[in-house]
Amino acid sequence: MIPRYSRKAMTDIWEPQTRFRIWFEIEAHACDALAELGVIPKESAEAIWEKGGTAQFDVARIDEIERVTKHDVIAFLTHLAEFIGADSRFVHQGMTSSDVLDTCLSVQLDRAADLLIADVDALLAALKKRAFEHKDTLTMGRSHGVHAEPTTFGLKLAQAYAEFSRARARLVAARAEIAVCAISGAVGTFANIDPRVEAHVAKKMGLAVEPISTQVIPRDRHAAFFATLAVVASSIERLAVEIRHLQRTEVLEAEEFFSEGQKGSSAMPHKRNPVLSENLTGLARLVRGMAIPALEDVALWHERDISHSSVERMIGPDATITLDFALVRLANVIENLVVYPEAMRKNLEKLGGLVNSQRVLIALTQKGVSREDAYAMVQRNALAQWRGEGDFRTLLGADEAVASKLTSQELDRLFDLSYHCKYVDTIFARVFSS
Amino acid sequence: MIPRYSRKAMTDIWEPQTRFRIWFEIEAHACDALAELGVIPKESAEAIWEKGGTAQFDVARIDEIERVTKHDVIAFLTHLAEFIGADSRFVHQGMTSSDVLDTCLSVQLDRAADLLIADVDALLAALKKRAFEHKDTLTMGRSHGVHAEPTTFGLKLAQAYAEFSRARARLVAARAEIAVCAISGAVGTFANIDPRVEAHVAKKMGLAVEPISTQVIPRDRHAAFFATLAVVASSIERLAVEIRHLQRTEVLEAEEFFSEGQKGSSAMPHKRNPVLSENLTGLARLVRGMAIPALEDVALWHERDISHSSVERMIGPDATITLDFALVRLANVIENLVVYPEAMRKNLEKLGGLVNSQRVLIALTQKGVSREDAYAMVQRNALAQWRGEGDFRTLLGADEAVASKLTSQELDRLFDLSYHCKYVDTIFARVFSS
Amino acid sequence: MIPRYSRKAMTDIWEPQTRFRIWFEIEAHACDALAELGVIPKESAEAIWEKGGTAQFDVARIDEIERVTKHDVIAFLTHLAEFIGADSRFVHQGMTSSDVLDTCLSVQLDRAADLLIADVDALLAALKKRAFEHKDTLTMGRSHGVHAEPTTFGLKLAQAYAEFSRARARLVAARAEIAVCAISGAVGTFANIDPRVEAHVAKKMGLAVEPISTQVIPRDRHAAFFATLAVVASSIERLAVEIRHLQRTEVLEAEEFFSEGQKGSSAMPHKRNPVLSENLTGLARLVRGMAIPALEDVALWHERDISHSSVERMIGPDATITLDFALVRLANVIENLVVYPEAMRKNLEKLGGLVNSQRVLIALTQKGVSREDAYAMVQRNALAQWRGEGDFRTLLGADEAVASKLTSQELDRLFDLSYHCKYVDTIFARVFSS
Amino acid sequence: MIPRYSRKAMTDIWEPQTRFRIWFEIEAHACDALAELGVIPKESAEAIWEKGGTAQFDVARIDEIERVTKHDVIAFLTHLAEFIGADSRFVHQGMTSSDVLDTCLSVQLDRAADLLIADVDALLAALKKRAFEHKDTLTMGRSHGVHAEPTTFGLKLAQAYAEFSRARARLVAARAEIAVCAISGAVGTFANIDPRVEAHVAKKMGLAVEPISTQVIPRDRHAAFFATLAVVASSIERLAVEIRHLQRTEVLEAEEFFSEGQKGSSAMPHKRNPVLSENLTGLARLVRGMAIPALEDVALWHERDISHSSVERMIGPDATITLDFALVRLANVIENLVVYPEAMRKNLEKLGGLVNSQRVLIALTQKGVSREDAYAMVQRNALAQWRGEGDFRTLLGADEAVASKLTSQELDRLFDLSYHCKYVDTIFARVFSS
Repeated sequence: MIPRYSRKAMTDIWEPQTRFRIWFEIEAHACDALAELGVIPKESAEAIWEKGGTAQFDVARIDEIERVTKHDVIAFLTHLAEFIGADSRFVHQGMTSSDVLDTCLSVQLDRAADLLIADVDALLAALKKRAFEHKDTLTMGRSHGVHAEPTTFGLKLAQAYAEFSRARARLVAARAEIAVCAISGAVGTFANIDPRVEAHVAKKMGLAVEPISTQVIPRDRHAAFFATLAVVASSIERLAVEIRHLQRTEVLEAEEFFSEGQKGSSAMPHKRNPVLSENLTGLARLVRGMAIPALEDVALWHERDISHSSVERMIGPDATITLDFALVRLANVIENLVVYPEAMRKNLEKLGGLVNSQRVLIALTQKGVSREDAYAMVQRNALAQWRGEGDFRTLLGADEAVASKLTSQELDRLFDLSYHCKYVDTIFARVFSS
Repeated sequence: MIPRYSRKAMTDIWEPQTRFRIWFEIEAHACDALAELGVIPKESAEAIWEKGGTAQFDVARIDEIERVTKHDVIAFLTHLAEFIGADSRFVHQGMTSSDVLDTCLSVQLDRAADLLIADVDALLAALKKRAFEHKDTLTMGRSHGVHAEPTTFGLKLAQAYAEFSRARARLVAARAEIAVCAISGAVGTFANIDPRVEAHVAKKMGLAVEPISTQVIPRDRHAAFFATLAVVASSIERLAVEIRHLQRTEVLEAEEFFSEGQKGSSAMPHKRNPVLSENLTGLARLVRGMAIPALEDVALWHERDISHSSVERMIGPDATITLDFALVRLANVIENLVVYPEAMRKNLEKLGGLVNSQRVLIALTQKGVSREDAYAMVQRNALAQWRGEGDFRTLLGADEAVASKLTSQELDRLFDLSYHCKYVDTIFARVFSS
Repeated sequence: MIPRYSRKAMTDIWEPQTRFRIWFEIEAHACDALAELGVIPKESAEAIWEKGGTAQFDVARIDEIERVTKHDVIAFLTHLAEFIGADSRFVHQGMTSSDVLDTCLSVQLDRAADLLIADVDALLAALKKRAFEHKDTLTMGRSHGVHAEPTTFGLKLAQAYAEFSRARARLVAARAEIAVCAISGAVGTFANIDPRVEAHVAKKMGLAVEPISTQVIPRDRHAAFFATLAVVASSIERLAVEIRHLQRTEVLEAEEFFSEGQKGSSAMPHKRNPVLSENLTGLARLVRGMAIPALEDVALWHERDISHSSVERMIGPDATITLDFALVRLANVIENLVVYPEAMRKNLEKLGGLVNSQRVLIALTQKGVSREDAYAMVQRNALAQWRGEGDFRTLLGADEAVASKLTSQELDRLFDLSYHCKYVDTIFARVFSS
Repeated sequence: MIPRYSRKAMTDIWEPQTRFRIWFEIEAHACDALAELGVIPKESAEAIWEKGGTAQFDVARIDEIERVTKHDVIAFLTHLAEFIGADSRFVHQGMTSSDVLDTCLSVQLDRAADLLIADVDALLAALKKRAFEHKDTLTMGRSHGVHAEPTTFGLKLAQAYAEFSRARARLVAARAEIAVCAISGAVGTFANIDPRVEAHVAKKMGLAVEPISTQVIPRDRHAAFFATLAVVASSIERLAVEIRHLQRTEVLEAEEFFSEGQKGSSAMPHKRNPVLSENLTGLARLVRGMAIPALEDVALWHERDISHSSVERMIGPDATITLDFALVRLANVIENLVVYPEAMRKNLEKLGGLVNSQRVLIALTQKGVSREDAYAMVQRNALAQWRGEGDFRTLLGADEAVASKLTSQELDRLFDLSYHCKYVDTIFARVFSS
């Protein structure tokens, strides 16, 4: 976790205080269920809530105990007993550490997913607003970095909107993957604990019941979760790369907002660099890389080994904190993006109409020219313009073979850019209606 | 693609013949729509189906044309024209190569997903059958590779069943991610083609309409698809590793089926090695590694670059073929797994009752002993047995502090293994009811 | 392996015929050593070379035998015996399959590395030639995609030369990692075979002796090898991305060679797309992804498990074939790159001298202005030019604070572009002398 | 960075204080060189060392300045000026931020590599000591997890020694990759700074000169560095997995040291779990995953973009801290590993001599039996023992076909386990002499 790439709302989820509070809640809810089942006294369950619920757990003290016991849950339970007293012997009855640890991780990832989904919602709102603002702002569409046909800047943003709508759906599915509770004992047989305890805790913690656990919640769930974060991160990279391209000196169709007092470079004071988007590109790489160890965690040995634990101690916080930060940063970049429609128009005109070649090609075939011939007719004039021998429109008019098929008026219509916008509303309806 | 790790049903999907047939269908359906819209003559659309539908495309001939044009779709269209004749000028009207290529890839991945889902279904059936067969077969549950508490072999298989049920759901979701059609022209504006063409082709090819494409279907969809395959592969690895552990000489609770005539080793004729499961472990690594380039493909430049193409030419076939093969192989391994219940029982008894320590611990606390004291009482006798100073049950009975709390009969009950099976039916109901 | 991304020189290494020939050589050399040691008759060793050395191994026949025995080396030995007859009983004496398989893989990877190193040499030659050709061709240096300070196109290529010189050194080291021979028996103890056999075979096959093997050559060697390929692939991506940027319509400082008859796009005949460089970007991703399973292969169980085998069957050929193809393609792209010095010059002048801001800043501080003040003086004029209020050089001259420190002549000198080239020869000497 | 998986010696390298001190040294050494070249006054260079060299940089203050300037190096220089006063205008003369940042990262990675190499040395010492201690401790060699032939525990450790000797050599090479200094200005042309400054700083900081940089040190160097860490991590995993296997309840040939007071499980007090080795497995996954973003960092745009920065801020510390911790933990595990030679012997005898089958096979062929026949003779007796029909040695003696070829004495010799140790000294000499 890098402080500069972190937001408090997310780091709070991973603070020791939060974790111990969740552990306590799991244990206390379990006591309620055990009391209900008559396994432990009801007064004890109540006392546990009363004394433990207001306890300020001392992280340093727990760490100190753990240094001796080398076991985090036992350290916590020992500390908890310092608050609860004699009733503490009813805590953790029939449970195993993983019941607490894994269910706690589920709660944390569930909450982290909530934040990430909210982040995506904010990003979607920014994208939608800017997309409608630039729905009809003509700009060059590019394939292979080379001018293709005109599109609108709103369509570019609408594409991102659709992509992040999918990201949202994936995060919702990923959240469901890990929002499960397991309190099933040492090897998942419920030998020492009634399944109704699990059902009760799950309900109280807002989780589903894991249908079958071993000692742990199976790690295919977590792998699916972190793999989803990697996919979302890759979509962030895509939009960041788009902005970086648009801010290139030679293109300069848009720029990240540049605050007063900010210095782009110690050496070149005129520079405005897309550093936020470049940063997002790097953050995306980080989140992506973290999916690999999560995938390797799936094949735990038999009913469990603990190799996943160190992995999750790192990527649990790091992947969610980084992705959260990146989503919020991206929303800000989009919200404040400085867009230059005139520059877009200027770039559009850079190739002198060559981008209409496809339309001319089709028009020729519709006039009965074979595709091969039409291609040749278009290509020779395109190449002439390319060599600087004149303007594509003029050259076509002067090409007898072309002129014999298309009138000057027809050619003019083929060079009208509004032609490319006729389905923008249709596409917007498809993207934003859902 | 490695022939020995391939099944024909899947490799067929990726054959050039299949691809060209799909390309033809996309083009011909588009012609139908164009004819319906009055853009091209209806007779031409019919003729295209008639002459093209029965054509045997000559892969070598297409390759030959491509060597000149360096463009695969143009090469195909040129070859198609050799069958269709003059009407071929109406083919591909207003379309761009990616309309055909990307929609074709969607069809191929959609079909591949169908096969993978069927594979998982077969695996689930095998798991279910063997799980019920061994529902009550007692076996040692292990955490950290060390004996924990008893479980049943059926529960192990039920866990795998639940995991592959999730794998199935993920594959269904992944299929929906990529089962989309885009026929939207050079930069996705439908400038030269009516969106109704896209709708018609999508319907005919069994795909959804991509709400907004650029020149291509956005690659976050494919990344999500291949990431899902990586998660499924990791679950395969988990089950394969379990079998490898069970077949260890010292454990030997189960073995892969060993056919007549098969030689395990050129040097050690007595050896029966879990080579299929080891092979599955390797195949899982391969599929997992292929998710990385798919994730890196997402950030295409602007409306598209073609960097994803070489990646997909390889991982499209390789990931689906390898996963298909692995799933089928795993189903066979499970179907034919030789299970040794007596060996399981023998291993269960190896530690002389130490696995019941947790139960004794709880019983003591229920008799009013503090958790710390109970732990110490159990631990001293456990360690004595460990040092070979006697049998755990006997030692406990001889420990005055223990004996003062638990009668001999009570202790006996705590060593009854059937205790661990009491919720097996409950768990089975949870897993197999859905 | 994708035929279109393969070269015969490399695919030949991975043909079954090649593999069987290497197997034969390993076995026959081992027989020589065994004969020398008196373990088998010398005449038999000679007969084995004589009859096996000219044998045309029938791949289909070996496959057929393997389908029964399910063991590739036994299948081969059985087929070999069909040529050799009675003496075949002396073949493979005291050896284990892995002795043959692993040593063979070493030979194949060693040869593959030879080709890759030769590929890098060809690429280095192309880079050097083009670098000297454009040693003094002024071009814009860019950071963050934004104009920074001038550099020369030769320096860009010299940087690539230095990077691929490192790639070469890494490949040489990677080759040494895997060029080892192990003939040490079932668990590496030489129980049934004299270590001198290993020494003899190693020498004859051009390999070093593995100091200690288990049943297999340890896979950290292969992991290091494939990780190196991933690093080299990433350098390919770097240069490919540079070319893609230079070929952007708005930049267009260089273009991939465009052959006659080639069609850039079925829809836009004027387009020249950097498709080779985009393809290289994708190929780099593929090679990179293959390092992951190779790294996961290291942790084989005990003296070996066979999980690495399926991985290597795929990535052994695929990674080397793909990287070989990519290196050769990249050399061709560089060799034939069309460079536009005038376009470079035009882009250089695009910002009207702003790129000299750093020089002005330094000159001011050298005249005693504090860094902060100098920064402010430069920045206000830079921003004025940026807003289109005039030319940077003129604005500076008109800024009284600046003019009080720098004469007009001094300012002119600060805008002389040749200033940036004064160390080009020095750098070239550093890069190309070694 | 996870505190529990960190050692102070390594985290110190990544502390802000350390970084600022290195920045200062780079700047101050550069001033010395600039003074020597007559660019700045010698007294100023001296004053900078004097006032800056004793300065206690205030991290919070620098952070505060950075929040305004959004530029870390400018923030530092501003703070530095607060110590140095007027002479501060000579600091950073002609340099660009990356000159400082990249050279500092080189120093940090160089120092980190020093620690890692020292860690490997300590691990090698532990391995060597334990290897010689158990040079002749017979143990079962296993392939596929199945008994193969005997080996010694010393050989297992010698194999690890050889593997970590290679790891050491790779780390030395990786250190050389990144131990480079670049002070070459905004795009690497030395336009505003004499190359002799770079040479001087490089020498003083113990680095080599980067022959050609752009604005940054090329990232293929860092990719090679982190890829090497991934390879080393994979070797850690290999040894950790070996220990985990040996500590399995059914095998139990070795155990991690179990300190007094440590609790293995809250539920099962008798359990001793190989948690350190499992933890190492997870840490290895983490380091491995970090190689991916490092590889993706290579393809920076043009003369640089800053996408690598966020990646390196995380993986720079995390990969080195984690690997350092893992190497030290592994050395401790090896140093204190509890080895059970009697258990090894017991496991060796588990299969009643079947492990000698290979020897019998060879002996039969040496008596003139064809390989196929010998195989069948061995196999039928091996399978009989497997089915529990008797002891392999006895069965062979009773098999007439075998007995007709091998006398009882000859058979006995084939069952002598010392046979497998005859080359242990030879192998030890190969491994430990170098």
